[in-house]
Formats: sequence, structure tokens, C-alpha cells
Amino acid sequence: MKDILILGAGLSTTSLIEYLLEHAEEFDWHIVVADIDEELARRKVNGNPRGKAITFDIHDDLESWRTIAKADIVISMLPAFMHHFVAKKCIDLRKPMLTASYVTDEIKEFDELARKAGIPILMELGVDPGIDHMSAMNVINGIKEKGGDILSFYSFTGGLVAPESDNNPWNYKLTWNPRNVVMAGTGVSKFIQQGNYKYIPYFRLFDRIQTRKILNYGEFEAYANRDSLSYREIYGLKNIPSMYRGTLRRPGFVKAWNVFVQLGATDDTYRLEDSENMTYRDFINSFMQYEPTVPVEIKLQNYCRSASDPVVFEKLKWLGIFDKRKIGLKNATPAEVLQKLIKEKWKLDPDDKDLLVMQHEFKYKLGDEVKMIVSAMALEGENQEQTAMAKTVGLPLAIATKLLATGQINKTGIHRPIDKDMYEPILTELKRYDICFKETEYLVDQS
Amino acid sequence: MKDILILGAGLSTTSLIEYLLEHAEEFDWHIVVADIDEELARRKVNGNPRGKAITFDIHDDLESWRTIAKADIVISMLPAFMHHFVAKKCIDLRKPMLTASYVTDEIKEFDELARKAGIPILMELGVDPGIDHMSAMNVINGIKEKGGDILSFYSFTGGLVAPESDNNPWNYKLTWNPRNVVMAGTGVSKFIQQGNYKYIPYFRLFDRIQTRKILNYGEFEAYANRDSLSYREIYGLKNIPSMYRGTLRRPGFVKAWNVFVQLGATDDTYRLEDSENMTYRDFINSFMQYEPTVPVEIKLQNYCRSASDPVVFEKLKWLGIFDKRKIGLKNATPAEVLQKLIKEKWKLDPDDKDLLVMQHEFKYKLGDEVKMIVSAMALEGENQEQTAMAKTVGLPLAIATKLLATGQINKTGIHRPIDKDMYEPILTELKRYDICFKETEYLVDQS
Repeated sequence: MKDILILGAGLSTTSLIEYLLEHAEEFDWHIVVADIDEELARRKVNGNPRGKAITFDIHDDLESWRTIAKADIVISMLPAFMHHFVAKKCIDLRKPMLTASYVTDEIKEFDELARKAGIPILMELGVDPGIDHMSAMNVINGIKEKGGDILSFYSFTGGLVAPESDNNPWNYKLTWNPRNVVMAGTGVSKFIQQGNYKYIPYFRLFDRIQTRKILNYGEFEAYANRDSLSYREIYGLKNIPSMYRGTLRRPGFVKAWNVFVQLGATDDTYRLEDSENMTYRDFINSFMQYEPTVPVEIKLQNYCRSASDPVVFEKLKWLGIFDKRKIGLKNATPAEVLQKLIKEKWKLDPDDKDLLVMQHEFKYKLGDEVKMIVSAMALEGENQEQTAMAKTVGLPLAIATKLLATGQINKTGIHRPIDKDMYEPILTELKRYDICFKETEYLVDQS
Repeated sequence: MKDILILGAGLSTTSLIEYLLEHAEEFDWHIVVADIDEELARRKVNGNPRGKAITFDIHDDLESWRTIAKADIVISMLPAFMHHFVAKKCIDLRKPMLTASYVTDEIKEFDELARKAGIPILMELGVDPGIDHMSAMNVINGIKEKGGDILSFYSFTGGLVAPESDNNPWNYKLTWNPRNVVMAGTGVSKFIQQGNYKYIPYFRLFDRIQTRKILNYGEFEAYANRDSLSYREIYGLKNIPSMYRGTLRRPGFVKAWNVFVQLGATDDTYRLEDSENMTYRDFINSFMQYEPTVPVEIKLQNYCRSASDPVVFEKLKWLGIFDKRKIGLKNATPAEVLQKLIKEKWKLDPDDKDLLVMQHEFKYKLGDEVKMIVSAMALEGENQEQTAMAKTVGLPLAIATKLLATGQINKTGIHRPIDKDMYEPILTELKRYDICFKETEYLVDQS
């Protein structure tokens, strides 16, 4: 028997927990779901005799030590900044660990220790990062095996709302951490095109979009997704002339969101004076010139040109940014105010279906020919709980856990799912859950 | 006899050291100038028998301990981030300390310790911060004494180049740390107008300018200078409805500089790939779209609208940003590249005179009348060494040192020069050096 411990029972854990419980009998697993909110953990276990819900607080050193000591495998679904506390304990107690989060510089330092302890720390096992790596490496290795030379790699991912549930002017609803949606794109975005390094600062990011049609889902817009350059090394494409990763939104979203960016309303580095007594209208007004005789709506259209586009203006108005309604947040940053607003307005209704879309585009040279492979995937959720986001984040992680528990992965140290022994069985099993990539290949006309 | 120790002999110390050496005989002072570069210290002492040059490294704990132990008064002209090391030692050794730098949160924590040690740490004794505080408090206390109620306070300062030495299209030359010029305005700028809090993010700061005519120096443009709100408490104006501090530049500078801001070329948070082999032209190109058939000049005019203004474009071209000349900096941030360029191009020639301008504007209510006081100062330098910047930074500090050495300041703990016992004698003596404010008062028409 194996004890599998899941730390955290939040948003993206539904499918992960379901999978493990469903397979618990077959593999003689015992599934412990641990959360600071025991009731939440209990709801996820849902009375399954193979499961158990417990209270867990990573900051309670002794208790978390004890809990981890009892497990055979640890899956951390805690907020990303907590992973290194978990990793530290897993190394000391020699417990394999899995997570869907990024390999940060902080975590990287545990690689040597994990190797010495003889345990694997398998990371980036969700959707982005996760399925993006696996599906990309699958194509990359295919091209390399037949002797092709990869010229460019463009990759796009978006967590959106399915067409049938798409009933707001932003064509967007929240399927993950709203804070990450507010902060999306902060910092600089880096990529390379035909050997030219390109850098886009945050406040220009939403000016520089690409458009794509994907599968039968119509049109999308994409903006650059942070540091695309670092993926060259991860994917073994160190000398690739063009490499770009983008985030997908429905057409029009980016132009409207850019109004908030241009105002400075997504800033999380300072606190607004007296935010408690501010209305949403005051909030928007605080970023613009003092002109008491001009209505905020008009000022905004003068200050951010794109706000004078009626399609953009409708989106802004629908969000309620001109309302004289109190925000009711003490000592808040601008980003926190915006987060509160979108959390209300972009909420998934109980029966809403979300949509997860991913597309990779490879150009490669084989002999005298230049070819293009487009590999695309789309998955719709079932409802507010069984989201495409929860499935694409949770299932690869669950399958990796199964592979580990059944001895099919033998690694030590920190790993992303970029090796065939990991991505092949995971991609194969994901197809059963309708997570599958449709691959098309073209000959590129070079004339 | 008193031993006065000056730590650092850099850019802004010329007038400070001269003043102290000139008064050394009269007050029986011995002046020790300490710098990591002993030769630089020696040049500043210039053979004066009352002076001595020594090597000094704040990171050499034992040696710096010994050096400070020998002094009666310590003036720190080291880079701002080093002041807290000096302050720590001054407290332990019970030596009064003076500096021209800001009271940071880090330094603030020493207030209690300095009080207990019975020593003063007198800070913000340069020009901005420094003369701005003194001249403002002089007017503020004047208004309060006659029972006036201050309605608004606008304050502007600029370090520029004097008209007779003004021979480049930017109408600007460097008189202080070029890094600070590149980074000017980063973060958010905060102020209050008619009771309305206003916030401007960095990338919109140079869009929102005010214009002023000051004394006989013609027109200037101003952009908001970081956190004006915090000055309300410092100046005892907690409930003032309008408070704004601005930085002065000659008309046209801000619009052209904004092109670099809009590109992201002032970013100091990441390092450019292969910057060593980049030309300035590549540098500019790296912030714009890949369009190999369009020249960088045209792309820039399309990407940053203001660059298509021929007056702006001439400034950019003059700086050499389109040159195919190698930058020659390894592993540089964009800000470092820009800093290297302006250091070359905006250098003061040996006989160049700089210009320091400051203007305060107060509106206040007295009985039924609303009045306006404008208090303005301008000072020109003599040459590359005897700059207005060095005088306005160094002289208030030197005079404060004299007041302290002669027992006319009796304080313990951390202080800015906002009390009459400090600002009155300093402002009075500064007049002898042509640093004096011209005050005019108007009646404001309220109809």
C-alpha cells in the first residue's frame, strides 16, 4: 500500500483528487487530502473510503513534518511560494514530491540535495507549464529523429470560456487565480525572431499582439508570455533563430485590458491613500488629471485613446469602473482593487464551461524542404468545478503520480516532463480524457 | 581644536571641502578628506596645511572604525546606500554625523539609538533634499505666523545647464550621477490636488507636464517628482488640499526622453543578451518589432509617435542612438547602455557653467483674501568643477557643520533642516554665495 499526500485542496485540485481516488482501489493507494480548511479537503474526498481529509498548515513545522513523514509520495498544490518549504521537508524525509508549478531559482538550489537524498522532485506537471512541455517535446523529438532542423517555434496557450458560456463583453471568465490575471505580463517579455532578440516592457506588451485561428474555435489574439528565451535551453533548441510563447485571449480583450495597464491600475507596488472610502469611479479618476468639470468617462477617453473605441468603452462600463460604489478595501494596492472587481464580474456560473486552448507551430528544414507542423489542442470544461483548467492542470500530475507510484519513473533530483519516459505515457493517457493534440503538416512555399 | 572627517571626495564635494578649509584657521579645525581613491582626496585638499587626505574603505571595518574614532564630526558624502554603515559606527562612537542624502526607512531606525547616544544625525542638507526644505519652511512658517491658511504648495527644482553653455539640442548636461538621470521617475509619482489623490505610473509620467517661467531664465517644463504626499507631514501641512513637487527640464527634453521610456530602454531590471556585441542601433531595434525591410529610424517613428516630431527626432539622432557603433558593455541592462551614452554626450566641458533652479509657489488664505507667494532661486556654476550643483549641495552642509562645531545646533537623533534654528542661519549665510530666494506676493483674483 502507498500513502499519497495532496497538500492543498484549492481551485485546480478537483480532477487530480478524483483521478487518484478512482485508481486507489486498483493500486492499493490511500489518498490524504490536506488543507488549512479541513472542510474544503473533506468536500474533495467526498466520502470515498480510500480518502481522508486532514487539516494542514505548512507553517506548523512539527505537524507538517509528521504529516509528510507518514506519506510515500507528496503532491504540493499549495501556493507557489510555499513549495520550497515542502521540498525542504521532502528531501529531509526522503519523500518523492510532485507539483504543477515552475522550477524557480530558489527551488533549483534543492536539485543537488534531492539527488543526494535519492528522491525525485517532479515539477511543471500542469498545463502551462506542463502539457506545453510534453506536447512540444513530442513534436521536437519527432522532427529531430527524422533529421530536421527547427527554424522557429511559436507556442500559444489560453485559459478562456467556452463559446456556449461566453456571455460577457470581455469574452473572458476566471478559471484560475485572479491575482495572476491582474498581474499577467508584468516585467519584461523576451523572445527571439530570426536571430534578433526582442524585449517588450509591460506597458507596451498589449500593443504588440498576434492573431491566430485555432481549430474550430475561431479567432484569438496573443501577447508575448514573459521569458521565451529560457525555453530554448529547456527544449534543447539553443540555436533556434525564432522562439516565441504567447498568451491567448479573445479578440478585443487585450485592447480593453490595456486601458487599465495604461492608467497604472494594475500596479501592485504601492498602496492607495484612503482606499477604504474610495468608489470605483474615484479609483479610475485617481490615475488622471484633476479636471473637476470633465466627467471621468470623457477624461478616460482622452487619456487612453483606445477607451474611445466604443467596443472597448462598452467593456469598461460593463465592468463597473465608473460606478459610485465603494470598493471597501482597506489599504489596498491598485492591483488589489482591480482583482476584487474582476473576481465579481468574471466569475464562472455553476453550469459555465471553460475552454483551454494550446497551439504549437514549428517550422523546420528537412533536406531542401521547409515544413510547418501545427499541433493544437482544445478542451472544454463541464461546469464551474470540473473545469478544463482543473483537468489539464490535475490530470498530468495525477498520471505522473501513478507512474511514480508504480515504478515507471526512476529519477532523482528536479525534473520537468521533457524526457520521453515521462511525456509519452502521460500524453497517451491524457487522450482518454479528450486532452489530445491534432497535428497537421504543411510544405512551406519558399518562393 | 576640532577634527572634521569628510567621507568621500566625489562630484559634489568641491564646495563643501573648500568652505571647511577656508574656515579652518578661524575655528581651529583640522579637515580630513577620506576616499577610496586617495589621489582624488589629495586633489581636493589641494596642499592646504589644515587639510589631510587619507584612503578610506567603509567595508574595511577595523580601519573605518579607527578613522571615525579620531574625528569629532563626520560628514558622509559616500553613495547613499553606504550611509547606514557610517551611521552605525557614528552612533557606537558617539560622533555627530551629517549628510546631504535622504532619510530612508533603513536610516530612520537609528533615530532612537542616536538619541540614546546623545548625537545628532543631520540629513537632507544638500539642495534637493536640503535647500528645498529650508526655503519652503521659511515661507510656510512666515504664512503661519501671520495666521494664513495654506491652500496649495507647488515646488519645482532642476539641475540644468546655464544659457551661455547650452549648446546641445537637449538643452541639458550632467551635473550629478548619470544613473539617477536615467532612472529618474521610476516607480509611481503621487500628489494631491484639491483633496484628490493622484497617481502617475512611470510610463505616463512624461506625458503629464506643467510649464513654468522662472526668474529671467525663460520657460521650463516639469514632471511630478515621486512621492509628494510624504512632504505634507515633513512640512507640517497634513491637511493641505494641493501638494505637488516637480522636476524641471528645458522645453522639449521630456518629450524626447519619453521615447526611451516608451521603448523600455530605461529598464534596469534585466540584462540584455549578448550586449557586448550590440551596436546602439541594435539596442534601439531590440525594443521594436521584427521588420527587416524597415529602417530602425522609421520603425521608431511608427512605434513612438513623439519620435516623428522632427524636433524630437533631431535630439535622438544627435545622441547617436542610430549609430552602428558597438556599445562594448558586457551583460548590461538597458539602463546601463543608456547611461553610457548620455555620460559621453551630456558631459560638461571644462568651462561649462551649470544652472540650478528652484521655485516654490504657495497659495494661502488670510481673512477674506487669497494670496500667492512665489519664491524662486537660480544659481549658475563657474566651470566643470565649481558647479552650481556642488555649491548648492555642499554649502548648506558645510554651514550646518560650522553651526554644529560652534555649538549653535543642539539636537540628538535624526533631523532634517526644517526647524528655524537650522534653516535661518543657513539661508542667511547662503546669500553670501548668491544662493538667495526672490520672493514675490500677489493677490489672487477669486472671481
